[in-house]
Amino acid sequence: MSGSRVIHATDDGWAEVDVRRYKDRGGPFLDVVRHTLLGGPGAEPDLAFEVRYFEVAPGGYSSLERHAHAHAVMVVKGRGTVRLSDHVEQISALDVVYVAPHEVHRFEAHETECLGFVCVVDRERDRPELVDEGDVAP
Amino acid sequence: MSGSRVIHATDDGWAEVDVRRYKDRGGPFLDVVRHTLLGGPGAEPDLAFEVRYFEVAPGGYSSLERHAHAHAVMVVKGRGTVRLSDHVEQISALDVVYVAPHEVHRFEAHETECLGFVCVVDRERDRPELVDEGDVAP
Repeated sequence: MSGSRVIHATDDGWAEVDVRRYKDRGGPFLDVVRHTLLGGPGAEPDLAFEVRYFEVAPGGYSSLERHAHAHAVMVVKGRGTVRLSDHVEQISALDVVYVAPHEVHRFEAHETECLGFVCVVDRERDRPELVDEGDVAP
Repeated sequence: MSGSRVIHATDDGWAEVDVRRYKDRGGPFLDVVRHTLLGGPGAEPDLAFEVRYFEVAPGGYSSLERHAHAHAVMVVKGRGTVRLSDHVEQISALDVVYVAPHEVHRFEAHETECLGFVCVVDRERDRPELVDEGDVAP
């Protein structure tokens, strides 16, 4: 068994991939779920990175945070915005976002559409630091 | 300048991302183009990986090849098949493919639809070895 495989998309995620409500960091966020697609703990030890899919429900948003590791993101469903420090930009399907190390960032879904994106990170990485809204003017 | 940025999708690719016909390896392939989205040579030195987008035109296919580095793939446009050693599987939007180290593989578009996919690889990686059709029965 080589480990190669196809993980088929389903109506609500991917076959045999658990969905996790994204509440493990205890930060101020709303309606975000995570699917770890490839390279999670114990999987694909040959990958130096992890591939995750996040879906933010309409009106939801991710934590405002920063960390030393970078994010490589591609939007694959819906639309919304990304906040990068004091800059907010519209994003939609196939747009790519690079979040550089230590950049304060947040992903937010449109009020009436979800925002689904793939996010690739180094396997070895630091934990995010939550940022207070008051510390960074949008 | 932190380097963070949004790279917007356009009608035929991404803003400020060059498209390259994929003929640099001289292998038997047909109608494949590559867009290096993040982490290419000289870019994003903090990323341990590269994010590329490949689009195979209807009826086209990538080289039959293998290498020590793994591929993490997500289909984002169209449909087709992936061949993993002697196994061929249908793939379409949002399906994920993990190509393990040394696995012989080829991506092929449907006859009437393109196959567009994101492919993440380690930044440091070996060069692909082309495989002769006769060496691996499909």
